[in-house]
Amino acid sequence: MSSIETKSFSQAIPIEKIRYNEQGLVPAIAQDYLDGTVLMMAWMNAESLQKTLETGETWYWSRSRHELWHKGATSEHIQKVKSIRYDCDSDALLISIEQVGDIACHTGERSCFHQVDTTKSAPPADTLSEVFRVICDRRDHPLEESYTCKLLAGGDNKILKKIGEEAAEVVMACKDHDSNAIASEVADLFYHTLVALAAHQVDLRDVYRQLQQRRR
Amino acid sequence: MSSIETKSFSQAIPIEKIRYNEQGLVPAIAQDYLDGTVLMMAWMNAESLQKTLETGETWYWSRSRHELWHKGATSEHIQKVKSIRYDCDSDALLISIEQVGDIACHTGERSCFHQVDTTKSAPPADTLSEVFRVICDRRDHPLEESYTCKLLAGGDNKILKKIGEEAAEVVMACKDHDSNAIASEVADLFYHTLVALAAHQVDLRDVYRQLQQRRR
Repeated sequence: MSSIETKSFSQAIPIEKIRYNEQGLVPAIAQDYLDGTVLMMAWMNAESLQKTLETGETWYWSRSRHELWHKGATSEHIQKVKSIRYDCDSDALLISIEQVGDIACHTGERSCFHQVDTTKSAPPADTLSEVFRVICDRRDHPLEESYTCKLLAGGDNKILKKIGEEAAEVVMACKDHDSNAIASEVADLFYHTLVALAAHQVDLRDVYRQLQQRRR
Repeated sequence: MSSIETKSFSQAIPIEKIRYNEQGLVPAIAQDYLDGTVLMMAWMNAESLQKTLETGETWYWSRSRHELWHKGATSEHIQKVKSIRYDCDSDALLISIEQVGDIACHTGERSCFHQVDTTKSAPPADTLSEVFRVICDRRDHPLEESYTCKLLAGGDNKILKKIGEEAAEVVMACKDHDSNAIASEVADLFYHTLVALAAHQVDLRDVYRQLQQRRR
């Protein structure tokens, strides 16, 4: 079984094992490596998959232009590949990427999946990122009755006091060996920490980048 | 609008606007609603999309059996729909789901995307979930030189002391208005909190569930 290695991310996948459709294409899902957001779905043929593995950047097959398409070649919004995997039927690819410019869609939206019913909204990310999005929205568009807005209005001294308090409650829940309380208090600690990030205009993605760097 | 409960699932997407291929099918990506993991990619036709919208559970079109396929009808691993969206070309669907049994693949794996090169590994989730996975792996398969293992070996008193310390460092970084330090200290606080969860056999998903419930 021959496989192609890349210089940049040195991953091999068995190209000849992939099952292409009648047009010689396989769907490829591109997913943000930090928060799991699905950014786009496009198509690859064997050649574009090979070029993707060789270069460590995504190459697709354009069904409308009938040509290989180096994503970001004109927009500069290239996609740096973190990992590629295929599914149990070998007929779909999942590519974890770092999206340069954080814009994957030709419309200028972050993700191509920005349509829900007939309105626009950000596609799902992980739970913490979604909570953070709501907190930032409350910060930017305050609501009278919102607990988050009251916290933010109280500034650092109100927010940071809660971090100390919630940290202590995590400690106590652990000492009590109470699983439900642990989950609940950690949720509280995470939420209040996200409020502190939002108050200081620090992106949760910067925290995720820190954590990813340490994994290496 | 985007806060959809499973039973009161009442989201409209303009079915007639979706662009099906020559076989009348559109690719549908099913994604875990808690951590963003892509669990599978399958195909829908207009009828299966309609049934999915009506029932709040996923229905696909089986290309091998040439029939409508209620996911989980035999395995009981049904998928409860949280939201559905479509992409900028209206020719792909993204479905946020709660996967009953946490098994989407017919092989018994959580995700169909468990293949990387010629070995198995869990597909990407959000950063925090990935860090938690590594911590749990260290807990279950200790490594001599691992900081995580040393922390875990120290038990609650060692781990919880670090939570207090890191919480205080988040507070100080905020008081210093130092964005880089804030991101770094929050990363530290999150990491040590994940170690406490792992030590107490509490799943990060339980924390995410708590946070999701509070969003409603």
